[in-house]
Amino acid sequence: MCKPFMVGDQQVGWVWPGVEKHIQRFPDVFMVEDKQVSLCPSLQMYEERTARVQEVMVKLREEGEFIALKGWRDEMYEVFHQRSSPPVFRMERTATALLGVKQYGVHVNGYVEHPQKGPLMWIGRRAKNKSTYPGKLDQVTAGGFTAGLTAQEVLVKECAEEANIPQDIALTAQPAGAISYFYEDERGLFPEIQFVFDLKLPLDFQPVNTDGEVSEFYLWDMDKVKEQIAQPDFKPNCAMVVLDFLIRHGHIHPDQEPRYLQFLENLHKTLF
Amino acid sequence: MCKPFMVGDQQVGWVWPGVEKHIQRFPDVFMVEDKQVSLCPSLQMYEERTARVQEVMVKLREEGEFIALKGWRDEMYEVFHQRSSPPVFRMERTATALLGVKQYGVHVNGYVEHPQKGPLMWIGRRAKNKSTYPGKLDQVTAGGFTAGLTAQEVLVKECAEEANIPQDIALTAQPAGAISYFYEDERGLFPEIQFVFDLKLPLDFQPVNTDGEVSEFYLWDMDKVKEQIAQPDFKPNCAMVVLDFLIRHGHIHPDQEPRYLQFLENLHKTLF
Repeated sequence: MCKPFMVGDQQVGWVWPGVEKHIQRFPDVFMVEDKQVSLCPSLQMYEERTARVQEVMVKLREEGEFIALKGWRDEMYEVFHQRSSPPVFRMERTATALLGVKQYGVHVNGYVEHPQKGPLMWIGRRAKNKSTYPGKLDQVTAGGFTAGLTAQEVLVKECAEEANIPQDIALTAQPAGAISYFYEDERGLFPEIQFVFDLKLPLDFQPVNTDGEVSEFYLWDMDKVKEQIAQPDFKPNCAMVVLDFLIRHGHIHPDQEPRYLQFLENLHKTLF
Repeated sequence: MCKPFMVGDQQVGWVWPGVEKHIQRFPDVFMVEDKQVSLCPSLQMYEERTARVQEVMVKLREEGEFIALKGWRDEMYEVFHQRSSPPVFRMERTATALLGVKQYGVHVNGYVEHPQKGPLMWIGRRAKNKSTYPGKLDQVTAGGFTAGLTAQEVLVKECAEEANIPQDIALTAQPAGAISYFYEDERGLFPEIQFVFDLKLPLDFQPVNTDGEVSEFYLWDMDKVKEQIAQPDFKPNCAMVVLDFLIRHGHIHPDQEPRYLQFLENLHKTLF
């Protein structure tokens, strides 16, 4: 069973048993109790918490036990209770999986309204050399938050890098909600929230990848999109973002889809 | 603390303590345990369960203890684990609040796209003599499921009765998801799921109430709508349906609304 990971009285993550037994060796940083794991209450300041957690993670990395820590990126990630509250400390991005820290991102549904064919959606295929989900189908563009950027700034940046979408077009993207879900893999636990935007692209626009992260783009009708998101070829969270689009835009009908409410429940998990 | 109400291994409701102490007087119908309340496993058949639960409810009604039972409607409501599974028994609609049975409905956002003023939404005011939420602001039309009808059939029926929307227009409504939430009042506990439809109405269309349930209709711009849903004058679940519309259509921006994710979480509660 995972235990809530607390900073003061606020939950900021989930600790799974395989991690718990390692971090309890550092009782001046992590306090492991019956029902929760806390950052030691003696660590009151943002910079002190950051430094002490980092020491533990560097040590665990040296010991080589955790796959997540082999992907060390030297990129710091802010840890929040909620995005609207101040961060409580920051930590190496790849180590967040060990503490089940909530991750935020921005996903963009790029679509066109074709006068004859109806709505079509741009789908990207991830480059074969990407470290996560190589070769899988993906949104036209998506990205994680970089400290200090707004959702709109992340969107404009990723639109430019991943699909060469100019800023004036990117800024027409409409926010349309968010999805939230848990997943786990060999690296750890990922409670994630993705802010979702719908971007209507001009009919003659052709996305072009500029950062080497996408190998190809396809323009598919909704039947093809529906068929593909049910296949393992699709990156799972991107398939969820597309499913949310299909539901919001009336391409799935509650009277025809027995799993309609189940889909919605899975798109909106309560993380903590 | 509420306990799950089970039929076999499927949860179909929630029983609150004030109800528990009454129904445990009927041990051949309800089995009250530490962590749950079950329908007696000896009751295996739909008709037998229906008859035995009805006997208990009639008895409780005679005793006059529960406000909910004073509103007895002689209208039977199907009890499901999920809407996609077969019903497990049926019971008097107003008694469902005692067993916290999930209720389903269909809510319609009626809007127009005005060439100068932008999007406008039709808002109804409930008649002063309605038994629930008299005089409160409401969707253009909404209604609960009647046994055997699809969401689309409920929608067409309510569009005609509450707003005189002809069937050919009602059928253009787009399904756009569902919201789920709990509320409680003096009658009991209500876990509810509302299927949400967006209906773009012609510019010159004027809704007219035909069943006496709506006293007036207003056509408001999105700023006015936003302002009003935060007021106690709005029926709470209708305000949630409108909030969902505002989020889905980009009228609320995650960078400008600190409660954005909190709103989404509250629109999508896991009921059971």
